[in-house]
Amino acid sequence: MVRREVVVLRIGHRPQRDQRVTTHVGLTARALGADGMFLAAEDRGIIRGIGDVSSRFGGSFFVKDGVSWRSCVRRWKESGGIVVHLTMFGINLPDLEDELKNINRLMVVVGAEKVPGEMYEIADYNVAITSQPHSEIAGLAIFLDHIMGPDALKTAFPDAPLSIIPTARGKKTRGQEQE
Amino acid sequence: MVRREVVVLRIGHRPQRDQRVTTHVGLTARALGADGMFLAAEDRGIIRGIGDVSSRFGGSFFVKDGVSWRSCVRRWKESGGIVVHLTMFGINLPDLEDELKNINRLMVVVGAEKVPGEMYEIADYNVAITSQPHSEIAGLAIFLDHIMGPDALKTAFPDAPLSIIPTARGKKTRGQEQE
Repeated sequence: MVRREVVVLRIGHRPQRDQRVTTHVGLTARALGADGMFLAAEDRGIIRGIGDVSSRFGGSFFVKDGVSWRSCVRRWKESGGIVVHLTMFGINLPDLEDELKNINRLMVVVGAEKVPGEMYEIADYNVAITSQPHSEIAGLAIFLDHIMGPDALKTAFPDAPLSIIPTARGKKTRGQEQE
Repeated sequence: MVRREVVVLRIGHRPQRDQRVTTHVGLTARALGADGMFLAAEDRGIIRGIGDVSSRFGGSFFVKDGVSWRSCVRRWKESGGIVVHLTMFGINLPDLEDELKNINRLMVVVGAEKVPGEMYEIADYNVAITSQPHSEIAGLAIFLDHIMGPDALKTAFPDAPLSIIPTARGKKTRGQEQE
């Protein structure tokens, strides 16, 4: 099987104000097996927050801030990648899922409150996770869970300094807690 | 088929600071067909934010703030309900999914950063959505998508003043925008 490449592009991020939500977006992408996140804003707090989790729990998830969303999307498309924009106005995921599952290089665009109209045009697909307003974090989570294949929820990082041992009660970990 | 009852209990919410994340938790629950959310804190901003969405997009999702989490959980269990606590330390969802799908009265507990140890004991199930740290919003989204049945992503509110018409480009709605 060809190694799949899935990245997230976070647009509309307002430094400070959106730091927590954007950190959740990045951590969700990492936990479900995406390769990394481009951030169309400068915010070292996001890089630090997600980098801290990766250094403890493993993996090579990248975060690149300060990108221009237009050139990030354009370069992705020029190199043969497909761009999916998550929006409640799009076609509902169940109606596109089979088609999207076969894409090898996928960029998932996750907006904040205001998304430029141009994004709806430039995206290959505008995809809704329900046609209800809710959360870009929830949308990304469900999208990746559906698209990444049956093992999305079993993401593991073999090089992890610290990992969790699933248990019915309490907390069990393996390895070194560095805090 | 028996009408299923699914509610969310949000614990550890710090008024103001967690307002946005907890609003996302509630909107995600609503969008995926849950009945309502109990909030173990007082925060009218959450009630307003989610109420505003429901008044525009329909449905009867309830939000009740100021509950004590212990008595909320106890009452739920006493009335025959099952309590699932979402935590990255729990048993991974794929390993419990079949069992959880058959529960008719389900309370899903979603914590913030600190969850009292007692919660791990009192819950009927501690369930992980991957064994990686990410986001309670993402966790709830994936959990409900898996548990609510195949139509979770097709939640619709027939009484809605405003609804979205899925479309490949742009934004289409039906009904009255009240803003």
